[in-house]
Amino acid sequence: MSEKLKGNILVTGANRGIGLALVKQLGETPGEEGHIYACCRDPQGPGAQALRDLSTQCPGKITVVKLDVSDVDSISSAVQTVSRIIGAGGLNLLINNAAINRPETPLSACEKKDMMEVYETNVVGPFLLVKMLLPLLQKAAEMDSTVKGDKMSCSRSAIVNISSLISSIEKCPETFYIKQMYPYRTSKAALNMLSRCLAEDFRRHNILVAAVHPGWVRTAMGGEMASLTPQDSVSGMLSILTSLSNKHSGMLLDWEGNTIPW
Amino acid sequence: MSEKLKGNILVTGANRGIGLALVKQLGETPGEEGHIYACCRDPQGPGAQALRDLSTQCPGKITVVKLDVSDVDSISSAVQTVSRIIGAGGLNLLINNAAINRPETPLSACEKKDMMEVYETNVVGPFLLVKMLLPLLQKAAEMDSTVKGDKMSCSRSAIVNISSLISSIEKCPETFYIKQMYPYRTSKAALNMLSRCLAEDFRRHNILVAAVHPGWVRTAMGGEMASLTPQDSVSGMLSILTSLSNKHSGMLLDWEGNTIPW
Repeated sequence: MSEKLKGNILVTGANRGIGLALVKQLGETPGEEGHIYACCRDPQGPGAQALRDLSTQCPGKITVVKLDVSDVDSISSAVQTVSRIIGAGGLNLLINNAAINRPETPLSACEKKDMMEVYETNVVGPFLLVKMLLPLLQKAAEMDSTVKGDKMSCSRSAIVNISSLISSIEKCPETFYIKQMYPYRTSKAALNMLSRCLAEDFRRHNILVAAVHPGWVRTAMGGEMASLTPQDSVSGMLSILTSLSNKHSGMLLDWEGNTIPW
Repeated sequence: MSEKLKGNILVTGANRGIGLALVKQLGETPGEEGHIYACCRDPQGPGAQALRDLSTQCPGKITVVKLDVSDVDSISSAVQTVSRIIGAGGLNLLINNAAINRPETPLSACEKKDMMEVYETNVVGPFLLVKMLLPLLQKAAEMDSTVKGDKMSCSRSAIVNISSLISSIEKCPETFYIKQMYPYRTSKAALNMLSRCLAEDFRRHNILVAAVHPGWVRTAMGGEMASLTPQDSVSGMLSILTSLSNKHSGMLLDWEGNTIPW
């Protein structure tokens, strides 16, 4: 494992599961200058109690921000809040973790609404958040005095999209019979394409873009049968993130650093 | 080239470009028992004049059907119309060709509406059409007395989704600089995933599913600089379609039969 992640980090879907574990481990590691923007739909609701507790346990390190990625106004408002706090600084790392699924909906029960809503949250939300945060990501890429030239890293300026093995079109025949999940599968394949496009688009800004499969994790989405705890998954992912460089931009990796075919 | 395509064939986006060329060449080939359902949004409008003319030139072979794949009620109504005409028969081949693009919209100008609308037409439309036509496709797969067991083909029962080289996540670095097209790229990657899922799902029904890249074709979407005429592209694709069998189900092929990586 290389050096720890640092700087200003924004995590979506931060109130539970992988998002919460990310904020916890990031909250334990950054130095004084780092700050975590932990975003969730309802920061005051019962579902965010664990995140609020975590924020209290790490004074001055975590700001909980209200964000619903399916709502343009909410994204705009969250970006304004973060920009105001960051001030003259930049955003070093955006982790697009928020996602929804309709796991119990086979083809016969899957409606237009399911397809559209899952795409809206899993793909269009990250797309719009990236677009609105681009000035802050660019600023971080430009102002990092610890790196020279075009050397990209997750500590300088990066976007990490939490993907899934389920996103792999190539691997579909191996995973389809676990659960159909048409809306989720199509959305995650699209998110992989988005990651790859952004990697091409932002190379000129020295912003790294990668997609990461967290493993099959014991969360509300992954279910109780899953093999990994959120802690182990996040520990693996953070280790991988700290080691990413230019050659990884535009790739899909798992929490152990293995490449997953598209 | 193997034997010609036959039976009941439905083509979406049939009033121009590749769709119109598909109907024209299919209209010239099927025997007396074959029939083409040529679908477009506005069969009475000026944009469907060429399709109406074609229908007149091929008496009894082509039925023009009103279909807007972005509208659930329109899909439902079109499926009812086709079902009524087909009667006790089945649908042998569904070609999902209708698609939209926002080619002149780079990231900075691309709004939520662009992302959602392109996905709605390019992915959710085909998804819903497949879902509603499934009973007719199953019937065709079951009633074809010319084939035995699980042998799949485009003459027995098949779904062909018109994809694009632009759909390839792997090839994105080679194509991104031509034009960004975020909404189109993400939608076509999702359509590839849909094709692959449907191939897995429908193997038990002996329904073949493939995605086909028509080449860079001189159409309203492809532009004047494109290298292929719609006629040459369609001629190549139809030749490929007639040769597809079980091993091709779930694949992405170009108009010359080459495999494109996801």
